Amino acid sequence: MLLPALREKVLHANREIARRGLAPHTFGNASGISRSGSEPLVVIKPSGIDYAVLTAADLVVAKLNGKIVEGNLRPSSDLDTHNYLYREFPQIGGIVHTHSEFATSWAQACRPIPCLGTTDADYFHGPVPVTQPLTAEEVSEAYVRNTGAVIARRFRSENLDPLAVPGILVAGHAPFAWGKTVTEAVENADVLEYIARLAFRTVLLRASRDLSELSDSEIPAYVSEHHYQRKHGPKATYGQP
Amino acid sequence: MLLPALREKVLHANREIARRGLAPHTFGNASGISRSGSEPLVVIKPSGIDYAVLTAADLVVAKLNGKIVEGNLRPSSDLDTHNYLYREFPQIGGIVHTHSEFATSWAQACRPIPCLGTTDADYFHGPVPVTQPLTAEEVSEAYVRNTGAVIARRFRSENLDPLAVPGILVAGHAPFAWGKTVTEAVENADVLEYIARLAFRTVLLRASRDLSELSDSEIPAYVSEHHYQRKHGPKATYGQP
Amino acid sequence: MLLPALREKVLHANREIARRGLAPHTFGNASGISRSGSEPLVVIKPSGIDYAVLTAADLVVAKLNGKIVEGNLRPSSDLDTHNYLYREFPQIGGIVHTHSEFATSWAQACRPIPCLGTTDADYFHGPVPVTQPLTAEEVSEAYVRNTGAVIARRFRSENLDPLAVPGILVAGHAPFAWGKTVTEAVENADVLEYIARLAFRTVLLRASRDLSELSDSEIPAYVSEHHYQRKHGPKATYGQP
Amino acid sequence: MLLPALREKVLHANREIARRGLAPHTFGNASGISRSGSEPLVVIKPSGIDYAVLTAADLVVAKLNGKIVEGNLRPSSDLDTHNYLYREFPQIGGIVHTHSEFATSWAQACRPIPCLGTTDADYFHGPVPVTQPLTAEEVSEAYVRNTGAVIARRFRSENLDPLAVPGILVAGHAPFAWGKTVTEAVENADVLEYIARLAFRTVLLRASRDLSELSDSEIPAYVSEHHYQRKHGPKATYGQP
Repeated sequence: MLLPALREKVLHANREIARRGLAPHTFGNASGISRSGSEPLVVIKPSGIDYAVLTAADLVVAKLNGKIVEGNLRPSSDLDTHNYLYREFPQIGGIVHTHSEFATSWAQACRPIPCLGTTDADYFHGPVPVTQPLTAEEVSEAYVRNTGAVIARRFRSENLDPLAVPGILVAGHAPFAWGKTVTEAVENADVLEYIARLAFRTVLLRASRDLSELSDSEIPAYVSEHHYQRKHGPKATYGQP
Repeated sequence: MLLPALREKVLHANREIARRGLAPHTFGNASGISRSGSEPLVVIKPSGIDYAVLTAADLVVAKLNGKIVEGNLRPSSDLDTHNYLYREFPQIGGIVHTHSEFATSWAQACRPIPCLGTTDADYFHGPVPVTQPLTAEEVSEAYVRNTGAVIARRFRSENLDPLAVPGILVAGHAPFAWGKTVTEAVENADVLEYIARLAFRTVLLRASRDLSELSDSEIPAYVSEHHYQRKHGPKATYGQP
Repeated sequence: MLLPALREKVLHANREIARRGLAPHTFGNASGISRSGSEPLVVIKPSGIDYAVLTAADLVVAKLNGKIVEGNLRPSSDLDTHNYLYREFPQIGGIVHTHSEFATSWAQACRPIPCLGTTDADYFHGPVPVTQPLTAEEVSEAYVRNTGAVIARRFRSENLDPLAVPGILVAGHAPFAWGKTVTEAVENADVLEYIARLAFRTVLLRASRDLSELSDSEIPAYVSEHHYQRKHGPKATYGQP
Repeated sequence: MLLPALREKVLHANREIARRGLAPHTFGNASGISRSGSEPLVVIKPSGIDYAVLTAADLVVAKLNGKIVEGNLRPSSDLDTHNYLYREFPQIGGIVHTHSEFATSWAQACRPIPCLGTTDADYFHGPVPVTQPLTAEEVSEAYVRNTGAVIARRFRSENLDPLAVPGILVAGHAPFAWGKTVTEAVENADVLEYIARLAFRTVLLRASRDLSELSDSEIPAYVSEHHYQRKHGPKATYGQP
C-alpha cells in the first residue's frame, strides 16, 4: 500500500471533520499530498463513504492530473479542486473541505469575513476572502476544476500568501482550508468555523445597535442591587451559611 | 423521612434541570407539593447545592407559610415564590424555575412569546405571558414573595387557567413553569425553552424579511442544477457506483 | 408479526429522529410503506411513546384508509397526513415528520427556504416549499388529513416532483420529509434541518449588511499584525520553542 | 515542586476551560497566585499545550515581574497581562482568560454588556465593562502588559471593585475573568459567557421588535385551539388512552 504514513494522517483529518462537527453525513473531505517521490501523489477520501467506517485502505491515491494510482473506490467528487490547489500552491501539503455551519453561511451570503478580533489575527493574515461566483461557462465546462480556478484567481488578484491566509469561502458553496500538512489544514478549517461564529454574532450585535438604543433598557438598579446583595452582601440568603 | 415518594420525584425533576441544560451551575430549582395530609407540605431543592451531588435527603420540607418542617440545609432562596404560587393555584402540584437560555432572553426583553406555531399550541393555550416588572416597593418589601405576586396578578388580569398556561416569564428575570405534578412541571419548563428557541428564530426571520428582499439572491440555476444532477442525475459522480 | 424487516427500518428511523435531535420529547414520527402485498400497508410510530423505549413490536400497521391491521397502541395522531401523502405520491416509501428547530422556525415564519447554496442543491431541486395555511373549514373538517391535502396542493400547483423535492414546511407547524425509503426520509429530514440552519444565518447576514457598513470596523492593522507575528513570525512567542 | 495544592487548583481550572467549551484548541489560560510566601508567586498554564495532556508538573511558576521560578516550558504568552492584574488588584487570587464565543463576540463589537436581567446581577455588580482599544504605541511598546493596563484603566476610571465586577471584555480581543481564587475565576468566566448569550438574544429580540409588528402574525385561533384540544381536551387523540 502506497504512502502508509500519509494515509494515517489523512484518515485522522477526515475523522476530525466528523468529530468536530464540521460536516454532516458524508459531506466534506480531506486530502494530503506527498511531493517527495518522483511524482506528486495525493491521498484523498473516497466519495460518499461514512466517516465512521472509513479506513486508511479506503483512501484513494491519485496523480495531480486526476489519474487514480491506487484504490478500489471512486475518489471524492471534489478531487479536481484539491488538485488545482496543490498545483497552484506548491507550499501546501493538505486540504480540507467542509460544510461547517457558520463558514458556509458566510459563503452563502457571499461576504468575506472581516478581521474583527485577535482570534482571526492569530490564524489569518487579514480577512477570510470569498471567491467570485462561477460563471455558467465555468460550471458547464469543468465545475470542480473551476472551483479551484476561482480560488486561485482570488489569491492572485489580491496577491495573497496561501500559508498566511490558509482558507477561503467559495461563494454560494462552502469553505476550503489548507496548511503545510493535512493536520494543520483541519485545524485551520476548525478555526475558520470558530472565526465565522464570532463574526456572525459580532455583525448582528453591531447591526442591532444601529436599530435600538439600549441605554434605558437595563433592569432597574433596585432589582440588580437586590439580587447582587442577596448573593454577596452581608445578609446574603443564597447558598448555605 | 417525610414524603419519600415525592422527594424522589422532586429529586428527579431537579436533576432534569441540569441534564436538559435548563440552568447552569446551581441556578434553577424544582419543588413538589403534597396536599393530601392535614397541612400542605412543599418539598424543594436546597439553595446553592450542585445538581450532581444532590440527594433526596438534602431536600427541604416546608409549610406554605415558609416554616421549615424537615431538612438541615437552607431551602432555595426562591421558596417564597413557590409558596405564593401553590397558594394561588390550588390545582398545581409542582413548580420548576430555570434560567434556560432562550426563555430567559424573552424574559429579559420583557416580551410575551406569541403563539407562532402548533408546538406552542400543543402545550400553551395562548401566548406565554410575561409579568410586569416589580416596583421598587415590591422589591424592598419582599422581593421573592412579590415575584409570586406579579405572576398571580398577570393570571388574574388576563383570567388565565394555570393548567392551560403552565408557565410565565418574569420580566427581567427568567421563566417559571408548573404542572399537575413536578414531573409535568419540568417537561413544561423544557417545552417552554423549546418554544422560546423557535419563536426567537421566527421573529428574526420575519424582521429580516422586512429588511431584505431575497428573491434575486438565490444561487444561479446553472449551479444548483449542476449540483443536483451530479448527485442524482443519470451521470451522477457522487458516491460509489 | 407483519412486515418484520420494514418494522426494523421504521424503528431505526424513529430513533434517528431522537438521536439527531430533530424533535424533543415524543414529538415527531416516522413511517414506512410496503406496497408489495395485495394491499399497501403502513408501519408507523405509536402516539406519545418515548423514543428511548420504543420497540419494533410497538409499531402500528395500518391500511391507507387508516384502518388498523396490527398493533395494541394508538397510532401517531399524524397517521392521516402520512396516508394522504402515500396515496398522493406513489413513488415514496417513507415519511418523517419532525419539529426540528430551524426548519420549524422557517415554517412558523411561513417562508419557503430559498436555494442559497450547493448544500441545498445537493438534496432539493429548488427551494424548500411552504404550504398555505389551512383554512378554518379544513381544520374543523379533518385537520390531520387536510395537512396532507395542503402539501399535495402545493406540489400540484408548482408541478413539483416529490423525489426531487423530498420535503416541505407546513405553515405555522413544522416540516415533513420523505424519500424512496424511510431511511432516505430521515436523512432528508436531517439535511432539511441543516439547510434551514445555513439559510437562517445567511439571511441574517444579508439583512445585517443592509443595516451596517462594516468596512471601517475591523481591528486596527497594528493589532492584527502583532497577533499574527507573535504566533507565526520569526520572533514568535506563542507555544513552545 | 513548588505550591502543589495551588498547582492542582490551577490545573483543574484550565481543564474546566476546555470541558465547558470556553476556548477551542489551546486558546485560553488560567492562573492562580500565592501571596502567602516571602514573595508572590503565580502558577500559570504553559503556552500552546493541549488541555487534554496538561499535567500539574507542566505548569509554570513565575514572579510578578515575569521571572520564571520553576518550569521547563514557556509560560502562557499572556503572562504579563495576568501579572499586571495581580499587581493592580491585590484582592484577587485567580485569573481566567478565554475566547468563549458570545463574550468574545461582544468584545469584538466593542460593547459593554448591559445588565439586562437578574442572572447578570447575581454575579456582576453592574454592566460587564469593555476596555478601550490599545493604541498603536501601546501595542508596539508592550502589547501583553498593556492589555493589563487598559483593563486597569477602565476599572480606575469607573472606580470599579474587581471583586464586585469580576471580569471585563478586552475590545477586539476576548474576555478576562477573575475571583478570590482560580476556582471562582473559572466559574465567573463561565457565567460571563452565559450572560453574554442571554444578552445577545435579548438585544436581537429588542431590535427585531423595532422592525416588525407581530400582533397580527400569530397562528389562527382555530389552529391553536384545535391543537390544544387534541392533546388536552375531552376528546384528545394524542398519546395512549
